[in-house]
Amino acid sequence: MSQHIVVIGGVALGPKAACRFKRLEPGSTVTMIDQSSLISYGGCGIPYYVSGDVSDAVQLSQTTFHMTRDPKFFKEVKGVDVQILTKATRIDREKKLVEVENVQTGEKGTISYDKLVIATGASPRHLGLPGEDLEGVNYVCNPADAIRIRESISKGDVGKAVIIGAGFIGLEMAEAYADMWGVETSVVEIADQIMPRLVSPVLATMGQKHMEENGVDFYFGETVKSIEGEDGKVTRVITSKRTLDADAVIVSAGVVPMSDIAKDAGLKVHERGGVYVDEFMRTNDPDIYAGGDCCIVKNLITKGDAFLPLGSMANRQGRIIGNNLAGGDSKFDGVVGSFVVKMFETSLAGTGLTLEAAKAAGFDAISVLLIQLDRAHFYPTKDLMTLEMVVEKGTRRVLGVQGFGSSGDAMVGRINAVAAALKSDPVVEDISNMELAYSPPFAAAMDILNALANLADNALRNINRGVSPDGFKELWDNRESGQCYFVDCRELPDAEPFLEKNPEYWHNIPQGEIYNRIKEIPEDKTVVLVCNTGARSYEAQIMLDEKGIKDVVNIHGGMAAIKKYGVDI
Amino acid sequence: MSQHIVVIGGVALGPKAACRFKRLEPGSTVTMIDQSSLISYGGCGIPYYVSGDVSDAVQLSQTTFHMTRDPKFFKEVKGVDVQILTKATRIDREKKLVEVENVQTGEKGTISYDKLVIATGASPRHLGLPGEDLEGVNYVCNPADAIRIRESISKGDVGKAVIIGAGFIGLEMAEAYADMWGVETSVVEIADQIMPRLVSPVLATMGQKHMEENGVDFYFGETVKSIEGEDGKVTRVITSKRTLDADAVIVSAGVVPMSDIAKDAGLKVHERGGVYVDEFMRTNDPDIYAGGDCCIVKNLITKGDAFLPLGSMANRQGRIIGNNLAGGDSKFDGVVGSFVVKMFETSLAGTGLTLEAAKAAGFDAISVLLIQLDRAHFYPTKDLMTLEMVVEKGTRRVLGVQGFGSSGDAMVGRINAVAAALKSDPVVEDISNMELAYSPPFAAAMDILNALANLADNALRNINRGVSPDGFKELWDNRESGQCYFVDCRELPDAEPFLEKNPEYWHNIPQGEIYNRIKEIPEDKTVVLVCNTGARSYEAQIMLDEKGIKDVVNIHGGMAAIKKYGVDI
Repeated sequence: MSQHIVVIGGVALGPKAACRFKRLEPGSTVTMIDQSSLISYGGCGIPYYVSGDVSDAVQLSQTTFHMTRDPKFFKEVKGVDVQILTKATRIDREKKLVEVENVQTGEKGTISYDKLVIATGASPRHLGLPGEDLEGVNYVCNPADAIRIRESISKGDVGKAVIIGAGFIGLEMAEAYADMWGVETSVVEIADQIMPRLVSPVLATMGQKHMEENGVDFYFGETVKSIEGEDGKVTRVITSKRTLDADAVIVSAGVVPMSDIAKDAGLKVHERGGVYVDEFMRTNDPDIYAGGDCCIVKNLITKGDAFLPLGSMANRQGRIIGNNLAGGDSKFDGVVGSFVVKMFETSLAGTGLTLEAAKAAGFDAISVLLIQLDRAHFYPTKDLMTLEMVVEKGTRRVLGVQGFGSSGDAMVGRINAVAAALKSDPVVEDISNMELAYSPPFAAAMDILNALANLADNALRNINRGVSPDGFKELWDNRESGQCYFVDCRELPDAEPFLEKNPEYWHNIPQGEIYNRIKEIPEDKTVVLVCNTGARSYEAQIMLDEKGIKDVVNIHGGMAAIKKYGVDI
Repeated sequence: MSQHIVVIGGVALGPKAACRFKRLEPGSTVTMIDQSSLISYGGCGIPYYVSGDVSDAVQLSQTTFHMTRDPKFFKEVKGVDVQILTKATRIDREKKLVEVENVQTGEKGTISYDKLVIATGASPRHLGLPGEDLEGVNYVCNPADAIRIRESISKGDVGKAVIIGAGFIGLEMAEAYADMWGVETSVVEIADQIMPRLVSPVLATMGQKHMEENGVDFYFGETVKSIEGEDGKVTRVITSKRTLDADAVIVSAGVVPMSDIAKDAGLKVHERGGVYVDEFMRTNDPDIYAGGDCCIVKNLITKGDAFLPLGSMANRQGRIIGNNLAGGDSKFDGVVGSFVVKMFETSLAGTGLTLEAAKAAGFDAISVLLIQLDRAHFYPTKDLMTLEMVVEKGTRRVLGVQGFGSSGDAMVGRINAVAAALKSDPVVEDISNMELAYSPPFAAAMDILNALANLADNALRNINRGVSPDGFKELWDNRESGQCYFVDCRELPDAEPFLEKNPEYWHNIPQGEIYNRIKEIPEDKTVVLVCNTGARSYEAQIMLDEKGIKDVVNIHGGMAAIKKYGVDI
């Protein structure tokens, strides 16, 4: 039985679904339509084209082996018919046809289908600001944007850039402007941290600090009121608190699913956009599938709706749709929400829920923060990694792990391992015993992920009672109240610079001497224990516990985390 | 209730169990005994000390923050009593005491215990060869070995080294000799590949080839008959096939668990050594625990016995024993068998079963091999990675994944993600949809792991019918028989050098032209399709299928894998 499949949208999911289907049913036909002339490009590569890491924009539209994925390629190599510059204007589910319009000629027509795939993607959120259409104001959407943005930089027209939004694309574009091109770059974000909702304030601050050290300025808790210009060209951005000069503006305030055509056809759509699909990626019309950035999937941890517009999702879902178009029963269960973003020499990554998201979803959760070397401490390429684990009290269920680390593959590898485990509702012990491959050049004997779960275990058992560097900052900022007694439990040479700088507040009792010097510790104050990364302060806390001194806080992540977080001691 | 815990063995599991227990029950006492004077060292770091990556041997016995883990450290910082140079000679389970002997003075004594931990570790397998005790012949066991080995190299005494055994330690030591010190290094291995039983012959050959390019010679299928010397110093190694000059010999023929003391005490021990423990790491005596290199654990895939002597296992199990000594009920379910080994600029890693191991365990399994870039193809730091997946037919269960890749963290991260998934008996689809974090600097939109599972899916569906480079080699070596018609389905410029070199046997039909040029393909021969990595040859195979040409083999991994494997075309 030969079928005719119509695919609306030719960027990521569309081509994947089309080609997979064609390989399974070479005798059937597929028509893929797209309103643009550019199809099947890697939009996620745009910041790396702007930065210069990718030399030619055409690479974003090529296969691994340098064949350009244009309509001719799809026809000859994949057997898929492509109609570019063709906009789908309406789906007639009764007659099973798609009404189309050529965006250049205005010519109208219809294409009938046996089965239909909606792969309309998402579009950048427009803020409706005065001045959004000035020259130099850009969204980051397709290769044409990329070429325009890079051209203006390379011509020397851009001395100052303002990025609106500190999510994935905002941070990647900030790096692109500041790193290779040395553009003075500012980021304006309505929330009070980078990567809001995706990482904790502590991890966000570590990432922000690294970006600031690389010349990017941040303005948090500010909204953009308008964009102004002269002679049709942008010159400044007016926020709720200040005016920023700008020769270039990037609006990266998130994306919204393009699901109007589905909604108009009576398909089930989320109130804020996004087509609902079942586990087979099928809409409520059994002959219509949807996937990629235009659809809503299930969050496997909260069991609620998730919108996760990533090229990786589109590819995996596209294959599933291809299978099912050919009579298969492949399933897409849902997502745990894995991500990674590179920021100069560092990265932020995560999977599952942050503490904030966990609480919002109704979990009674805590989080713990660990900083540790990413491989054997004696191996020369070792580097510190900071991970945070979110766990549910009572059930001890692991809800998520996020981290701040180098820009290498070490951290994302750990995050991926947790993501794999998250699909089976792991408890803390599952991560404590996770079998990460061990060899000194790649891991510590007790890998940081195992140690992170062990810390969570100790926190849940209440035998490790500590706070993260943000908690330390609060205590330290309030040091003049005299409520806290700060004890550096490292050896004297490590503590000395801090003793000298803060003779009144900083004290040193190496952990091994605690029992002998227990009388130095005042009984009427909260004892704040600090060491290098939190291991010795934990041991010290246990020793004080044993001696009946219970009003003790040890600083998770120790001086290493305090330094990355940026507390002035 | 205060307890007295005795721990026999002070290297990896012993200290971990002792310290964890002390943190949970600071009021109890722990006595840890070891027959050596060196305790708590990272033996896995020895090759990196020999190579010079680790500058000082004392680093192997230090904490992350440079405190040496000697008896004083354990007493002051951890509250654990240590008796070095003290050998446990017998366990009296009735009286609950350990008979000990001072290895220097011969003085005997007993130590009574409430609970006992056997952490006796493993020792290098002695081959019983004539000449094993010559100067210059070394095992790789403890820091004293390490210092002796490096001293002899740094004094300039070693021009040629012979390594016996091509497992983890053998390969690491071969790199240590050859890389930094430029020693002429040979490896003799009784099996016919490196890393026998741990990776497939194809992956092993890729790794071997890289080591050979770095100056290491291999002799497979040879046994060492004797080691000979002059004036008490080694000068040569006699194998079953040749004589190799040697100023230094490393015997790295595996390790054997040291479980005699447990066996003599009537504890349940494997016939080839290794203490049996339950999921709580308890022996058949409820007051005696065992863990680390001296014990047998469960293989979670075969459900059979496993011996996995790794420092990482010792650490994880040590914590579990510590918990359980303090009245806990922590469990160690078993292992999937993850590993990684660095070899110059590359690494081999894996988890679960190889095809050979799967078949030996009774699984009706196949394996597929994929070579693909480890991140977005347009991102500058991209690199090829080769992965092999072993799956059970019928159930579609994933039994293992092994790989050959760069020495960075990209491959081990994928292996760890699979290891995490393996604990939940995944099927192919679980890896196809595995949610690896995506961003161009870290992954492709369809990550290599997803693509690997997709390939396994296609092979199980029998729509991708191919062989790995070893299969290609067989076909190519037999080309003069005329049974095969080799078609390079890349564009002409890629195929041209091979056409010129093999005008008689090599043909070129770009995949996109297959339908138009179908008549060029002979009907009476097996068509062998080759492209860059196997993607286009797969498409071509489907096109030929569609036209009724079924006697087709496409080469998994394509020219990229053929090159890494080393076939002369």
